[in-house]
Amino acid sequence: MNNETLPDRYAMLTTESVIEYLRNIDAVVAILGEPRASWTTSEIGDGNLNFVFHVQSEQASVIVKQALPWLRARGENWPLPLSRAYFEYEALVREEQRAPGLTPGLIHFDGDMALTVMEHLSPHIILRKGLVQGIRYPTLARDLGRFLARTLFRGSDLSLDASVKRADMALFAGNDALCAVTEARVFTEPYYDAELNRWTSPQLDDLVAEIRADSMHKAGIHAMKTIFMTKAQSLLHGDLHSGSVMVTEDDTRVIDPEFAFYGPMGFDIGALLANYLIAYLAQPDQAAQDNDRTDYAEWILSTAFETWTEFEEEFKYLWQTERTGTLFPLEVFGNADEVATNRARSDFLADIFRDTVGFAAAKMMRRVIGAAHVEDLESITDSDRRASREKQVIALSRELLRRRADIATMEDVIAAARKHQVAE
Amino acid sequence: MNNETLPDRYAMLTTESVIEYLRNIDAVVAILGEPRASWTTSEIGDGNLNFVFHVQSEQASVIVKQALPWLRARGENWPLPLSRAYFEYEALVREEQRAPGLTPGLIHFDGDMALTVMEHLSPHIILRKGLVQGIRYPTLARDLGRFLARTLFRGSDLSLDASVKRADMALFAGNDALCAVTEARVFTEPYYDAELNRWTSPQLDDLVAEIRADSMHKAGIHAMKTIFMTKAQSLLHGDLHSGSVMVTEDDTRVIDPEFAFYGPMGFDIGALLANYLIAYLAQPDQAAQDNDRTDYAEWILSTAFETWTEFEEEFKYLWQTERTGTLFPLEVFGNADEVATNRARSDFLADIFRDTVGFAAAKMMRRVIGAAHVEDLESITDSDRRASREKQVIALSRELLRRRADIATMEDVIAAARKHQVAE
Repeated sequence: MNNETLPDRYAMLTTESVIEYLRNIDAVVAILGEPRASWTTSEIGDGNLNFVFHVQSEQASVIVKQALPWLRARGENWPLPLSRAYFEYEALVREEQRAPGLTPGLIHFDGDMALTVMEHLSPHIILRKGLVQGIRYPTLARDLGRFLARTLFRGSDLSLDASVKRADMALFAGNDALCAVTEARVFTEPYYDAELNRWTSPQLDDLVAEIRADSMHKAGIHAMKTIFMTKAQSLLHGDLHSGSVMVTEDDTRVIDPEFAFYGPMGFDIGALLANYLIAYLAQPDQAAQDNDRTDYAEWILSTAFETWTEFEEEFKYLWQTERTGTLFPLEVFGNADEVATNRARSDFLADIFRDTVGFAAAKMMRRVIGAAHVEDLESITDSDRRASREKQVIALSRELLRRRADIATMEDVIAAARKHQVAE
Repeated sequence: MNNETLPDRYAMLTTESVIEYLRNIDAVVAILGEPRASWTTSEIGDGNLNFVFHVQSEQASVIVKQALPWLRARGENWPLPLSRAYFEYEALVREEQRAPGLTPGLIHFDGDMALTVMEHLSPHIILRKGLVQGIRYPTLARDLGRFLARTLFRGSDLSLDASVKRADMALFAGNDALCAVTEARVFTEPYYDAELNRWTSPQLDDLVAEIRADSMHKAGIHAMKTIFMTKAQSLLHGDLHSGSVMVTEDDTRVIDPEFAFYGPMGFDIGALLANYLIAYLAQPDQAAQDNDRTDYAEWILSTAFETWTEFEEEFKYLWQTERTGTLFPLEVFGNADEVATNRARSDFLADIFRDTVGFAAAKMMRRVIGAAHVEDLESITDSDRRASREKQVIALSRELLRRRADIATMEDVIAAARKHQVAE
């Protein structure tokens, strides 16, 4: 990880100093209103990397997200550059341009302070918590499918002139330290005896040993790592799990793109798919007396299916109507040759789908045997029951990775998920 | 193409002013020696983009290559940024580090003047001319195979830490205008009615129309363009045709990496393969009374074969001995798991080979129906005979592109080449 010199103006905010700071920002005063003395704040961050302050007045509230110069959970021994706040802001700006209305509104950015003031989303909750609670979100699939299609298409050479994209790719190459976190945490550490790995032990001990000895699986995971590191296809969110989405029953917002960089489109879609599939497999142990979660588990699968379908439909629509970039230009793939453009489009989408399946497999596995786990599984307090769900996640991950060249449709993915849920 | 403001210090050199300039460069004086008044020069550039001066003294000589702010052959209406001289120099420095002894020695670089002073290679000639003349180069395949393996392996995440590679990729993203030339000239313009296209007419008119109507071929070419634009696998030479190699019977030097950028390894290998195959197909019309070129044509094929074999052997050796980068790290792919690392390596090489075949196809086609043609074919003055060889090049290009997913070995490529040479 990079060491950096902190800007002179950088100071970690407290619940007191954040209000002092905001009182001088006109855009914030315009929203929170007078009297400034009545503003109150609380620190609500549950992540690893940042302070998150909720600042309220009588009439409104805003969120202040400030990057810390290290990984919060592990203290000063693990520095992470403040520049990630800049890349997050730049990514939010592009996401808002490309997929309007699906990210939090931006109010103020301060690079030296590594902070962004943004809209307080209310009564939104984190999607992952909604999935654990069994809440249905009727517009979720449509919103996320469109978010994916619009950000990924419009951030690629299909939409952008290659010169514009190359310059922006070079800019986001500066978000190096965050890319390095993904390279290590997702693709590498789970497959050797790395310090931060953990798993439900002793139940999964033998299985972890088996995975680390599975040459085919490791070669497959690192084929996906190669794609992650070398396929600069579009500007990605970079960390699109169900903890990076805030929802109500009729509104969806994607937050926290601090891992943004130019990478393979399937990485964002695969991250989301992995989290849907984990949530699905965990459902039987989220059951309560009045709700066995059978129907809800099916709703998750249909949401995964519809997210991809919406992505695909919107991507096809943009391909037909907004192909203004350097790839597949109209001079060669004009309306006069519908066969060529349709073939090119279906090849392009098939390639995205293959990557999606491979990345979903990688993302599922790391949530069980790597450093960062998820509430869907961690909330199962009985370790035998948890281990048994985790074995299903592992089995599905291995099958998806092994069959990634052959699995051609989301129906196939869903059939595999059902099989492993029943298998236990 | 980019417009740029020329540096204040930039001045186009003449045969007089180049000597004035060099007299003040200590490193040049040390080579050419006194008396400086006796130095003489001639302009020997036959390229499109630069002045090339050959400067001699009684005891030695050097080459001065200066970039012009436009494409030389087309005058001031086609600006090309001087920064390409910087990227060429930076690429030469890395090539010399990574594949010592296979590039011209560097003596002096001046960014404002957009010039590099380098070793005068003598008695070397351009490889393409040697292939037209029927000269054998016993060390060529070994030298170029090693050059490819060493530059491509050592410029990739297999050798470099991802942070180092990402920063260097961002640097070379600045070589945008030259990437744009390749994107247009190689992948796009040949497939529509672009201004600079030309071909042997009327003999090829129907075939050109047929290619432009071939949806499958166009989709395939643009799948390769997508790989060119999005697969940042290693620092490439970027223009590795037989005009970018200087040879004697026992020495090989790769010159002119001004198109350098981070792209797919197969693009460099494919460029070279395309030029071997064109040279092979052109041989019957290079025949003289005393030499029907049958044996020489076979020598070209065996050189193509051995170049790949040498590349593959050296790449495997570096994989085993120098895998110090972020991809396939020893923690996961150590000696303890030879099966995993061998599988990963053979998958990686198979992927490079697939790209190589696809890029060779794209490069062959553009030399016949695009803007830039080659002496191998242009030297055939009888237009019917030339058209007949060009049809073979086109047929081989189409077959290689169509079968690129299935062609697994260089033997298959060579068999296809033989078939099309005989077919006429």
